[in-house]
Amino acid sequence: MAGNGFGTIFRFTTWGESHGPAIGCVVEGAPPRIPLSEADIQPWLDKRRPGSSRFTTQRKESDRVQILSGVFEGQTTGAPISLLIANEDARSKDYDAIKDQFRPGHADYTYWAKYGIRDYRGGGRASARETAARVAAGAVARKILGDAIVVRGALIQIGPHAIDRKRWDWTAIDANPFFCPDAQIVTKWESFLDETRKAGSSTGAIIEVHASGVPAGLGEPIYDKLDADLAKAMMSINAVKGVEIGAGMAAAALSGEQNADEMRMKGGKVTFLANNAGGILGGISTGQDIVARFAVKPTSSILKPLRSVDRFGKDIEVSTKGRHDPCVGIRAVPVGEAMMAVVLADHLLRHRAQCG
Amino acid sequence: MAGNGFGTIFRFTTWGESHGPAIGCVVEGAPPRIPLSEADIQPWLDKRRPGSSRFTTQRKESDRVQILSGVFEGQTTGAPISLLIANEDARSKDYDAIKDQFRPGHADYTYWAKYGIRDYRGGGRASARETAARVAAGAVARKILGDAIVVRGALIQIGPHAIDRKRWDWTAIDANPFFCPDAQIVTKWESFLDETRKAGSSTGAIIEVHASGVPAGLGEPIYDKLDADLAKAMMSINAVKGVEIGAGMAAAALSGEQNADEMRMKGGKVTFLANNAGGILGGISTGQDIVARFAVKPTSSILKPLRSVDRFGKDIEVSTKGRHDPCVGIRAVPVGEAMMAVVLADHLLRHRAQCG
Amino acid sequence: MAGNGFGTIFRFTTWGESHGPAIGCVVEGAPPRIPLSEADIQPWLDKRRPGSSRFTTQRKESDRVQILSGVFEGQTTGAPISLLIANEDARSKDYDAIKDQFRPGHADYTYWAKYGIRDYRGGGRASARETAARVAAGAVARKILGDAIVVRGALIQIGPHAIDRKRWDWTAIDANPFFCPDAQIVTKWESFLDETRKAGSSTGAIIEVHASGVPAGLGEPIYDKLDADLAKAMMSINAVKGVEIGAGMAAAALSGEQNADEMRMKGGKVTFLANNAGGILGGISTGQDIVARFAVKPTSSILKPLRSVDRFGKDIEVSTKGRHDPCVGIRAVPVGEAMMAVVLADHLLRHRAQCG
Amino acid sequence: MAGNGFGTIFRFTTWGESHGPAIGCVVEGAPPRIPLSEADIQPWLDKRRPGSSRFTTQRKESDRVQILSGVFEGQTTGAPISLLIANEDARSKDYDAIKDQFRPGHADYTYWAKYGIRDYRGGGRASARETAARVAAGAVARKILGDAIVVRGALIQIGPHAIDRKRWDWTAIDANPFFCPDAQIVTKWESFLDETRKAGSSTGAIIEVHASGVPAGLGEPIYDKLDADLAKAMMSINAVKGVEIGAGMAAAALSGEQNADEMRMKGGKVTFLANNAGGILGGISTGQDIVARFAVKPTSSILKPLRSVDRFGKDIEVSTKGRHDPCVGIRAVPVGEAMMAVVLADHLLRHRAQCG
Repeated sequence: MAGNGFGTIFRFTTWGESHGPAIGCVVEGAPPRIPLSEADIQPWLDKRRPGSSRFTTQRKESDRVQILSGVFEGQTTGAPISLLIANEDARSKDYDAIKDQFRPGHADYTYWAKYGIRDYRGGGRASARETAARVAAGAVARKILGDAIVVRGALIQIGPHAIDRKRWDWTAIDANPFFCPDAQIVTKWESFLDETRKAGSSTGAIIEVHASGVPAGLGEPIYDKLDADLAKAMMSINAVKGVEIGAGMAAAALSGEQNADEMRMKGGKVTFLANNAGGILGGISTGQDIVARFAVKPTSSILKPLRSVDRFGKDIEVSTKGRHDPCVGIRAVPVGEAMMAVVLADHLLRHRAQCG
Repeated sequence: MAGNGFGTIFRFTTWGESHGPAIGCVVEGAPPRIPLSEADIQPWLDKRRPGSSRFTTQRKESDRVQILSGVFEGQTTGAPISLLIANEDARSKDYDAIKDQFRPGHADYTYWAKYGIRDYRGGGRASARETAARVAAGAVARKILGDAIVVRGALIQIGPHAIDRKRWDWTAIDANPFFCPDAQIVTKWESFLDETRKAGSSTGAIIEVHASGVPAGLGEPIYDKLDADLAKAMMSINAVKGVEIGAGMAAAALSGEQNADEMRMKGGKVTFLANNAGGILGGISTGQDIVARFAVKPTSSILKPLRSVDRFGKDIEVSTKGRHDPCVGIRAVPVGEAMMAVVLADHLLRHRAQCG
Repeated sequence: MAGNGFGTIFRFTTWGESHGPAIGCVVEGAPPRIPLSEADIQPWLDKRRPGSSRFTTQRKESDRVQILSGVFEGQTTGAPISLLIANEDARSKDYDAIKDQFRPGHADYTYWAKYGIRDYRGGGRASARETAARVAAGAVARKILGDAIVVRGALIQIGPHAIDRKRWDWTAIDANPFFCPDAQIVTKWESFLDETRKAGSSTGAIIEVHASGVPAGLGEPIYDKLDADLAKAMMSINAVKGVEIGAGMAAAALSGEQNADEMRMKGGKVTFLANNAGGILGGISTGQDIVARFAVKPTSSILKPLRSVDRFGKDIEVSTKGRHDPCVGIRAVPVGEAMMAVVLADHLLRHRAQCG
Repeated sequence: MAGNGFGTIFRFTTWGESHGPAIGCVVEGAPPRIPLSEADIQPWLDKRRPGSSRFTTQRKESDRVQILSGVFEGQTTGAPISLLIANEDARSKDYDAIKDQFRPGHADYTYWAKYGIRDYRGGGRASARETAARVAAGAVARKILGDAIVVRGALIQIGPHAIDRKRWDWTAIDANPFFCPDAQIVTKWESFLDETRKAGSSTGAIIEVHASGVPAGLGEPIYDKLDADLAKAMMSINAVKGVEIGAGMAAAALSGEQNADEMRMKGGKVTFLANNAGGILGGISTGQDIVARFAVKPTSSILKPLRSVDRFGKDIEVSTKGRHDPCVGIRAVPVGEAMMAVVLADHLLRHRAQCG
C-alpha cells in the first residue's frame, strides 16, 4: 500500500536508502526448485553498476548481492528470497550543503511536502540506487521465465541523437558503454556526452526493451493489461517521463490500415505481418516480440546554477557538485530489462493461475 | 487479481460485456456522507455516450446509470456503491459473420489464445463499452476530490493534425464535437474525419488531461508513484499505445537546464517557473497542474479489407461493417478524465492514511 | 481495501443493503470454459433462503439469482461474473422506530461511530442478507473445485444442546430443518427453539464444515495459511464469535502424543491415523478432510426489552419486533459451506500459480 | 500473494528460515516522524526470546534487531523499515537425522507435498523462529498506536489447567515465567510442565490478548472485519488451532438476553454493561476492550516415539530430541500481542483513509 513493492503472484518489495547501511528486496512467489545462486544475479547487477565507464557516476560500489533466504541447496524453496546489497561508498558529507535545499528536478521538495522529513543523503529513498534492487529481482524473474524468453534492452537515443534503426544489431550492445545497437552512432554519443559534461549539463535518453519468445495469452484484461503493467513498471523507474508500446505515440498519426498488424498462417502458426501493437492486443500478448520504450529525463543534478528555494522559504541558487551520471538513461537499460522481466514473470504465473 | 479493478483504497471493479444485459461497476472506499445521486454521474456518461455527433458510432445507448447500493438519503454511507448501466442497442446479429474470425488490431486472437473461448458479440469484454463503467466510477471520484480539484481533458491531435498549443482555450472544449481546445483546427478535423470515413479507414488521436488544484504530496514512492499509476491508468484504456507525463518522450532530447523546473517563492508559496515535470517529482505531486497525455491508435474496425486468419487456421480477408467510431480517440477524452480522477482520489485517501 | 471482497486469485466483491433494490457480487478469477448457469447457483441459495421452515425468519424472498456477465453460451469466459439478487420483501417501515436507536448486539452503534451515517433499514449493509451473495459466490467456487472435492456443513449445537458425534450421519442433514447430522436430537432442538421463541428470546449455535477430497499442498505459508484464511472467512460471517480447526480450542488440553496425527503408508499412500489437525499442518492441506467449526452468537433482535442508548445520547429500552430468526446459526450452515468453498477455490488457483 | 506478509496500509513482509543466516521483515506504511530506534523494538523481542526460563527451548539467540532503513535521525521517514535479526545458534547437524522424515504434527509432509523441496534444518521456513519477525513488526505497530492504546497478553491455560479468572491480575504477568495473570496457579503449572518434560511429552495452552483504549469505529465491514482480521492474524501463528473473540465458542450456548451487551450513557459517553462481544460489533470496534483468545496445540516435537512415514514411502518411528519448548504456547504470548498490535495499527490507518 505504501508503494514499495511490485507484482502480484511474483512480487518483490524493496527497501533501503542511498546512504543507509544497505539496500535490498524480498522476492515472493518464485516457484520452487528453480536453481538459483548469487552467480545468477550478480552479472545483471554488474551491468547496472556505477563506475563502469567514464560516462557514469564515479561512486564505487561493488554491488555484491547476498541471498539471505528462500534458497536451499542451490534451489528455490518457494519461500521468500531476501536479497541484500551493502552500501559501501556513501559519502554523506557531500550532501550536507543541500540538506535544507530543494534541488530542482529532484524529489527533495515533494518528499518534504509529503512526509515533513527527508533523508537528504544521496537522495535517500528517492535515489536511483534503489534500482539495484529491481535489477536483482529481475534476475530472479529471468530464472522463472527460462531460456526460451529473452529480455534485451538498448539505448536508442541520447539527447537529440537517435540511432538509425536500420543499423540495429543486438550484438553491438555489449561492445560499447551505452548498450547501443547502432555501432556507428557511438562516437557521436561519446563526444556529445563529453561536451555535455564539460558544459556542466546533462542529457536525456530513450531506452527500448524487447522480450522475445513470450507465448500468446499473457496479460489480464481489463486493468492489469500486459501493456498497462509495463507502463507502470517503466514509469516507476526514476526520471522516466514517457512510455510507449509498439508504435507508441506515433500511432496517433496512423490510419487504420497502416496500423493494422495483418495476420497469415505460416507453417501452421498464426503470424503477424507487422508489429505496431508491440506484441500486445487487448492487453494480452500475441506471441510477437513485446516492445516497450521509455524516455528518461536529463539528470537533474547539474553544475550549472539553478534557481530554487529552501525549506525555510528562501530563494536560493543550487549548483550540484557530487558524483553524477551526465545521462542517467544509460544505466536505465538494465533496469528497464529487469522491469520487463518481472512483469512477464508475474503474468506468466497469473496466467497459469486462472487458465492452467 | 484477474484484473477487473483499479485502485487501492478508492477502488472500482467493473464487469459486463458489450452485448450482455448490462455493464457496471462496484466502487469501494468512498468516504461516507458525500452527497451523491445519479444526477452527479449522468452528465459524465453523456459526454462519452455514442451517437452524440456524426463522428462517433451510431449505436444508440441512453447509458442511464442506476445506483443500486451505498447511498442512503442522498449520501454515501461508506458501503460499496454498485452502479449499473443497461445495454439497450446491442445488435449481436451484426457479429455472426466474425464469430470465428480474428480481426486485426482487435483482441479476438489474444482472448482466444488466452481463454479458449470468446464472446465475439461486439467485442465482448474487450469492447470499449467497458469504459462507460470507468466514467461512472470517475464521477464518484470527482465527488471525493471536491470542487477545488478540477480534472479536464482535451483532444490535441487527430491523425497527423495537431492543435496549435498557443491557441489553447478551455472554453472551446464544449463548443465542438471533439473536446478540442483549439477552435481554429476544428473544421480541418471535420473534413479530415469525413474523408477518413469515406475512405473506409480510421485514424488515431492524442488526448491530454490536466488536473489543477492538486495539493503537493500525493503519490507513493517507489512503485506506486503518481505518474506510474497514471501511466497504468491511461495505458489500460482500450487502444492506448503511449503515455506521457509533462514533457514526456521529448524530455529525452532536453538538457538538464532546459528540463529543470526552477522554483521561486511567490506570495509565501513555492512556485515553479516551468512544468516539464507535469506536476510530479519523484512520483509525488508538486502542487502544479498534473499533465498526462496518451495516444490512441486508429480504430481497428475498418471497411478496407485486411488479411487475417480464423480460428480454424485458415487465411481470410476481414472487412468490418457494423457501427464504429472512425476515431475512438474522441470518446477517449472523458475516459481519460475519469482515469485521472480515480487515480487522484485513490492517492488522496492513501496519503491521508499514512500521513494524516 | 474497504473490505467488501474476499480472496486473491478467485475473488468476489459483494455489494448491497438489506432494503436496497438488490444485492449482488462480482466474482473474478474463475477459470474459463467451466459450464455455469443460474441453475448451478440457485439450489445453494434456496438452502439459505429465509422462510424455509418455521425456525427461520418469515421474510419472503425468492432469492432468484441472475448472471449478468462472464458467461457465454453456458460457459465461463474468464471475465468477471456479475450476480444479482433482487430484494423483494423489504418492509422498511418496520424499521422506522429504531432509526435513531442503537440495538444491543447489532452494528448500529459501531456503524454510526465509524461513518456518522447509517442505513437503518433492516440492518443496511450489516444485515445477514449480505450472506446470500456469499452463497452465490460459493456456488461458483464449487464449480471450480469440481466433483472430487465435496464441501458439506452441519449444525452440531443449538444453545446448550450439542449433537452426539457418534450418531453423525451426513444423510440426515437434508431430512430436518436444521442441517443436523444427528437425527435423534432434532425433536429436542425443535422444542427448544419453540420455547425460545415463545420466550421472546434467541439462541446461539455451532456449525461444522467439512471438505473432503482436498489434495495435499493447498495453503500459503506464512500469513495466508489455509487455516488462517478459513478463520478469517468464517469469522467474517455475521454473528460468528469463534473459529476452530480440527481439535480447536480443546487442543490446549491435549498432550503431544494425544494430539499427534500419526502416519502410516496404506496402499502406497500417506495416511493419517487421526485428524486433530483438521487436515492442515503448517497452514497447508494434508489430504485429510478439512474440518472447520464456528460459533454463532444468539440473534441480537429479541422481544425481551434491553437497555440501550440512542444517537442523541439518551438512555432507552429496545425491544425488537420485526421478522427474525430465533437462531441465525441455522441459516449460517450454507454460508459456512460457501466460505469453505471460496477459500479452497482460491487456494487451488494460488497453488497452481506458484507450484504449477 | 505467496503469503509472506500481513496487513494492508500498515503491512509487514517476513523472510528467513530457522537455520539461514538471518531472519527479518520489511515494515511498510508507518507514518512519518514517529520516533523509532532499536531500543523500541528490542524489549519485545527479549520477551519472546528462547532460553529465558527452563520452560522454553535452550537454543541461545540474542535476537538483536538491526534497523536497516526507513529511519533517519531517530524518526521514521515514511519509507519501508527493514529489520534484520541474525541467526546465531543454529545447529543444523541436529536435523540431519530427520531430513527425509515427516515428523507428525509438523509441516514436514505438507511442505514436501506442496513444494517438492524442504529446508529441513530446524523446520526451515515453518519454524516458530519466524515469529520473532512478527514481534519486531508488532513493536513498530505499538509506536503507531501510541500510549493511549495498550496491548497486553496473558497465558490463561496450560494443558487442562486454566486460571481462575477472578484472580486475574495484570501486574502478576511479569512476575512469573508464563505471562500468567493468576499468581496462585503458577506453581501448579511449574510442576505440570516439569512432569510433562520428564515424560518426554508436551502440552498445549490458551492465550488471551486485550487491547484497551481502542476508539470506536475501527474495522472494515464486511470481509475485513476487525475480528475477521484478528482471527486470521492469530490463526496464522504457528500451532494455533482456535480463535475466539469475546464470549467465543461459548456464545453458542447463550440466550439472546445473556449475550446482549446492554448500553447506558455514563458521563456523557456510551458505555457497555458487559463485553461478550469482545469489543467488536459488526466487525467494528465499540470502544470497549478488544478481547481475543487462541489455543496453541502441544509442541509436536516430543521424545515419545510416534509412527510416521518418510519421503521414500516407508513406515518409520520418529522420536525428536533437539531443543524444544515443552509448551510453545508460553512464547506465543508476545507473538499474540504483536499480531493484535499490527491488526490495530493497520485498521487505525485504514479508518483514517476512508473516514478521515
